[in-house]
Amino acid sequence: MISSQHALSLLKREIDNICYPAQPKRLYEPIAYLLDLQGKKIRPTLTLLACNLYKEDVQEAVNMALAWEIYHNFTLMHDDVMDQADVRRGQPTVHKKWDENTAILSGDTMLILSFQYVAKYSEVYLKKLLDLFSITTAEICEGQEYDMQFENRLDVSEEEYLNMIRLKTAVMIGASLKSGAIIGGADEKDQEFLYDFGINLGLAFQIQDDILDVYGDPAVFGKNIGGDILCGKKTYLLITALNRSDKEKREQLLHWLNVKDKNDEKIAAVTSLYNEMTVKEMAREKMDDFYQKAIHSLNKVNVAEEKKAILFDLAEKLMDRKS
Amino acid sequence: MISSQHALSLLKREIDNICYPAQPKRLYEPIAYLLDLQGKKIRPTLTLLACNLYKEDVQEAVNMALAWEIYHNFTLMHDDVMDQADVRRGQPTVHKKWDENTAILSGDTMLILSFQYVAKYSEVYLKKLLDLFSITTAEICEGQEYDMQFENRLDVSEEEYLNMIRLKTAVMIGASLKSGAIIGGADEKDQEFLYDFGINLGLAFQIQDDILDVYGDPAVFGKNIGGDILCGKKTYLLITALNRSDKEKREQLLHWLNVKDKNDEKIAAVTSLYNEMTVKEMAREKMDDFYQKAIHSLNKVNVAEEKKAILFDLAEKLMDRKS
Repeated sequence: MISSQHALSLLKREIDNICYPAQPKRLYEPIAYLLDLQGKKIRPTLTLLACNLYKEDVQEAVNMALAWEIYHNFTLMHDDVMDQADVRRGQPTVHKKWDENTAILSGDTMLILSFQYVAKYSEVYLKKLLDLFSITTAEICEGQEYDMQFENRLDVSEEEYLNMIRLKTAVMIGASLKSGAIIGGADEKDQEFLYDFGINLGLAFQIQDDILDVYGDPAVFGKNIGGDILCGKKTYLLITALNRSDKEKREQLLHWLNVKDKNDEKIAAVTSLYNEMTVKEMAREKMDDFYQKAIHSLNKVNVAEEKKAILFDLAEKLMDRKS
Repeated sequence: MISSQHALSLLKREIDNICYPAQPKRLYEPIAYLLDLQGKKIRPTLTLLACNLYKEDVQEAVNMALAWEIYHNFTLMHDDVMDQADVRRGQPTVHKKWDENTAILSGDTMLILSFQYVAKYSEVYLKKLLDLFSITTAEICEGQEYDMQFENRLDVSEEEYLNMIRLKTAVMIGASLKSGAIIGGADEKDQEFLYDFGINLGLAFQIQDDILDVYGDPAVFGKNIGGDILCGKKTYLLITALNRSDKEKREQLLHWLNVKDKNDEKIAAVTSLYNEMTVKEMAREKMDDFYQKAIHSLNKVNVAEEKKAILFDLAEKLMDRKS
C-alpha cells in the first residue's frame, strides 16, 4: 500500500519527467511553468490512492492522474485570464509573465495534452475513462460559467451556489477517484461510492475554502485574508448572509459590498456582520454535513478497512487544513 | 456513392440537430451561434467522402466529421479573440457579440465537445481516432503559435512559413480524410496516401487563400481585398517578396509595411511591388506544386477511379475557387 506522501513524490517525479516538444517554446514553457509551481496535487493523488485500493501497483494509474493534474492546471491558466488574477501560488500568473494570448493558446494546448494522457490507455479502459473525462471536464466549464455569472447577481440561492461548486470543484474530485477505481478494476458499485465520496468531500472542501478566506490564520493561509470579501465573490458565507439576514443587516451588508476602497475597513465590517449572523457556524455545519456524507459513502466501499484508512485520513486532513 | 452536396446537406442537418445542455445558456449559445454561421464545412465533408471510398453508408463517420467541424470552429472562436477580429463570416465574432471571457470559456467547452464526439466511437476505432485527433489538434495550436510569432518578425523563411501553414491548416485537412478512411476500413497505406493528399491540398489551399486576399475579385471574395497587407500578415506572397527582393525594393516594401494609415494607398503600393517582383506567379507555381503532389497521392489510393472522382473534383474546385 502506498502513502499519500509516496503518491505525491511519485507524481512530482512524473511531472518533472514530462517530455514537451522542443518547439515552439513559447507554447510549452508556460505549461511546464504552471505545472512546476507547487500545488497540493489532491486530484492526481486521489486517483492513485483509489487505484491502490484494488491494485498494489499504481503505475498504471499514473497517466490518468497526470491527465487530471494537467486539466486542473489548464483551468487555473484560463481562469486567471478571466479573473484578471496577477498571482498564482505566490508567482506571476501566465498571462502576467507572458501575455493573454499566450495564456489562451498554451491553455488550449494544455487541455489537449490532458486528453493525450487519457488517450494513452488501451482499449480495456479507454472508453470508460474518456467518457468520464470528457463529461467531467465539460461540467467544470459549466461551473466556471455559473461562478462568473454569480459575480453580477445578489440573489444567488444556496441551491444554485451548491450546484456551482459541485460543477466547478466537486465533480473533478469525484471523477479523479472514480477513474482510479476503474483502472484498479473496482466493480461499478464501488466506482459510484468513491465518486460520491469525492463529490461530498469536494463540496465540504470548497466551503472550507470559503471559511478559510475569512477566518484563516494569516501566518499560514497562502493568500491574503478577506480576498473574497474585497472582490465580492459569492461564497457560501456571503450567500448565507445575504439570504438569511434581516432587512437592516442586509442593507449594511449591501452598503459594504459597494465600497470600492477602504479595504481593511471593508473586510473588518463584513466579517463583523458575518459574526453577528453566526455565518461561520452555519458554514461549518454545512461543511460537516457534506463531510459526514462523504464518510458514509467511503464506508460503503467494499474494501478492507485498513486499505481505506489512508482515504479517511486524507479526508480528515483536508477538513483540518489551515491553508 | 454520395456527392459533396449530399455530404454537405447531411452535415447541416446533423449540426442543426446537435442537442446542447439547456443551461448555462451563455456557455452553449455562442457555440450554436458560431456553428450556425455558414462555413464551407470542407473538413467534415472530406471525412464523409473518405469514408465513402470504402463504405456505402457514411453515417458511421458523421460523429468524427462533427468532431472536426466543432474543433475547427473552436479555433476560430479563440483565434478571433487573439487576433481581436470583429467580424467572422459577415457576422460579429463571439467576443464582440458577448465578451472575451465568454469566448474563452465557450471555446474551451467547444474543444471538450469535439473530444466528446470522438468519444462516441466504440473500441474498434476509438484508440486510432483519438490518437489522430489529440495529436492533430495539438499541432494546430503549434501552428497558431508560429503564426502569432511571425507577426513580429521580418525574417521568416519560406521553410518556416510552410511548416506553419502545414501545422495550422494542412494537418487538419489530412487528418479529416484519414479519420474517414479509418472508419471506412481502409488499410494503413491508403490511410497515409489520403493523409498526404490532404496535407498537400491544405498547403495549396492556404497559398491560394494568400493569393485571393490580394488578387481576389472584390465582388465575390467574402472579405475586403488587401486585409492581409493592412495587418502585415506573413503570407506566402509577403515572405517571398521579402526574401527575394533586391535592396531597393525591399526598402520600399518595408517602408509601406510601416505605414499605419492611408489604407488604399498602402494596398495599391504593396500590390504594385508584388506585381513588379512577379510574386503572384511564384505563389501560383508553389501552389501548383502542392496541388500536383496532392493529385499524385490520391492516384495511389487503391480504390476504383470512379469512386475517387469526387475527391479529384473537389480538389480541383478548391483550386479554382474565387472566395
